[in-house]
Amino acid sequence: MPKITIKEVARLCNCSVSTVSRAINNDPNISAATRDRILQVAKAVNYVPNNSARQLRVSETNRIALLIKGIRNPFFQSLIPLFEQHLRMRGEEFVLHSINEGQDEVETGLLVAKEKRLKGLVFLGGRIEYPDVAFRDLKTPFVLCSVASNVPAYGQKCSAVSIDDEKEAFRAVDYLIKKGHRRIAILTGKRADNTVGFLRLAGYRRALKENNIEYDPDLVFYMRDELPEYSEENGYQVGLSMMRSGLDFTAIFVISDRTAIGLFKAVYDSGKRIPDDYSVIGFDGIEMAEYMIPALTTMVQPKEKMVATCVELLDRQIAGDDKKEQILYETVITERESVKDLSQ
Amino acid sequence: MPKITIKEVARLCNCSVSTVSRAINNDPNISAATRDRILQVAKAVNYVPNNSARQLRVSETNRIALLIKGIRNPFFQSLIPLFEQHLRMRGEEFVLHSINEGQDEVETGLLVAKEKRLKGLVFLGGRIEYPDVAFRDLKTPFVLCSVASNVPAYGQKCSAVSIDDEKEAFRAVDYLIKKGHRRIAILTGKRADNTVGFLRLAGYRRALKENNIEYDPDLVFYMRDELPEYSEENGYQVGLSMMRSGLDFTAIFVISDRTAIGLFKAVYDSGKRIPDDYSVIGFDGIEMAEYMIPALTTMVQPKEKMVATCVELLDRQIAGDDKKEQILYETVITERESVKDLSQ
Repeated sequence: MPKITIKEVARLCNCSVSTVSRAINNDPNISAATRDRILQVAKAVNYVPNNSARQLRVSETNRIALLIKGIRNPFFQSLIPLFEQHLRMRGEEFVLHSINEGQDEVETGLLVAKEKRLKGLVFLGGRIEYPDVAFRDLKTPFVLCSVASNVPAYGQKCSAVSIDDEKEAFRAVDYLIKKGHRRIAILTGKRADNTVGFLRLAGYRRALKENNIEYDPDLVFYMRDELPEYSEENGYQVGLSMMRSGLDFTAIFVISDRTAIGLFKAVYDSGKRIPDDYSVIGFDGIEMAEYMIPALTTMVQPKEKMVATCVELLDRQIAGDDKKEQILYETVITERESVKDLSQ
Repeated sequence: MPKITIKEVARLCNCSVSTVSRAINNDPNISAATRDRILQVAKAVNYVPNNSARQLRVSETNRIALLIKGIRNPFFQSLIPLFEQHLRMRGEEFVLHSINEGQDEVETGLLVAKEKRLKGLVFLGGRIEYPDVAFRDLKTPFVLCSVASNVPAYGQKCSAVSIDDEKEAFRAVDYLIKKGHRRIAILTGKRADNTVGFLRLAGYRRALKENNIEYDPDLVFYMRDELPEYSEENGYQVGLSMMRSGLDFTAIFVISDRTAIGLFKAVYDSGKRIPDDYSVIGFDGIEMAEYMIPALTTMVQPKEKMVATCVELLDRQIAGDDKKEQILYETVITERESVKDLSQ
């Protein structure tokens, strides 16, 4: 098959070669619409970036890329040095690539894998909502880390390491109920999020149901669409709405520690106190949780184990093992100061 | 075309096989002139090393390494995506390498540069206290980012971007004095730290002196040697000692926002309040500062500008410009809720 050049892609897109290059390299100085259009064309014509001499056989590289969706999330940030350490111990080279919220991680993965001649690929975070055919063209060994466990691709064509979002959310809310709370609000992902946010909301609902507490849709607060998902700012703004809602609740399950930081600030700025006025339980187990005021009770993900297992699963695939495994870890409920016991 | 062997290249260059190998591997134990001559010949005859196809001409790499000392510091973490973005925009590949507190960054830099065939190198953070000869063997273009401006190498053999630690510390403490504080404590680096901690302590002392306030060594608190420098934990433990000291002071200058997170917690756990009992000013401008309880007044470093300038300086060196530049930026005092005005 004749090889398509970048010039031809540029001609098809009616743009310059440098614009195509920018689109492929995720340059922020290009609109999302232009980038998406170019990537679509590039994909349609099966364009492979040509890096001249560096384009060698895939097997010769020892480069592993970490594709992060949500690089500003302290939970993911804390995984970076762990991946770096584990990969370095195995003599692998470590390449970091961050993906913006609106970007398609699988397509980016395809391009990065081709362009950088990777030995392997780890998708960290993100909501891979595409049918498993999306991965069909990705010939490079890869592992999903912390990707929601309900994605269609999961358990079919991918090796993956994560926690069971629905079950862990159930445990968090069940914990609040055991502490005597009955009116429990949830601060979940964006309304359109049908992966992590959806699963944790489902766990919240099941915990209410199994404890014979009626589900009240008014107590479900979604992150705002116009702000970055999981950001402190989103937690702060939604938190202010919660405080102003006049609704009656004694506890809040917030599905991310980072978002909890903003929620805490909103409660404080509203003249209320945690846990006296509101109990809060978080999710993730970022280092900062211990130093929040008051210290955050949260569901701690076993990040050391998760990273070690990711690297192991990737290794096996690189070695030619076709078996795909999905490993689910449990979180540890770490009790600190943010939940008041009303059960006494 | 028959494959050219390394022996034939050596014969053409009238040198030994090991010299050809050194040239190809960018070994510093070979003069630049010899290396360039050999690489020219190797290129002309289309020589490709057969032991590893990755061993190509040095000029073919576009890999820039970021060597971070202090990867758990949110200030440095927030620079990672900025470097990633800037380097990607220029079509460079981005390699991350973290260095532990006790590790020698220059030696690591030398090893990484050799092993990974780098185009350039950025040292982020760290206390490069070595004489400038330490850099003598590092032939790869490099820039220092956020390295204390009093290191011997500075202004001699290095391009560097940072802030003026002494002057900015002076401004922070002078700000507290203008707000009516006279008994001001400092939480500085470890006792042996003769770079960033030393300079900021010097700025603290000068601010007291120029405002005719007597220096009281009892009000100088050093981070603990047995804990990671700048960590939340260190701020927490030293903060508890400060609270228990029984000393009289109304304000604290803490030389890192991350450390301030732990200090805040220590004040809270001691039943005291910020800013009613103690005013606090921080340093760095991490995103989290805005969401601290209360929000932290701090000296914000212009990180976007710093990263852009680093990449520019590196670019110039890669292009062959021998001129070394040292750029110092000013911080911006960002007023929030943690400093009480006693001057009224």
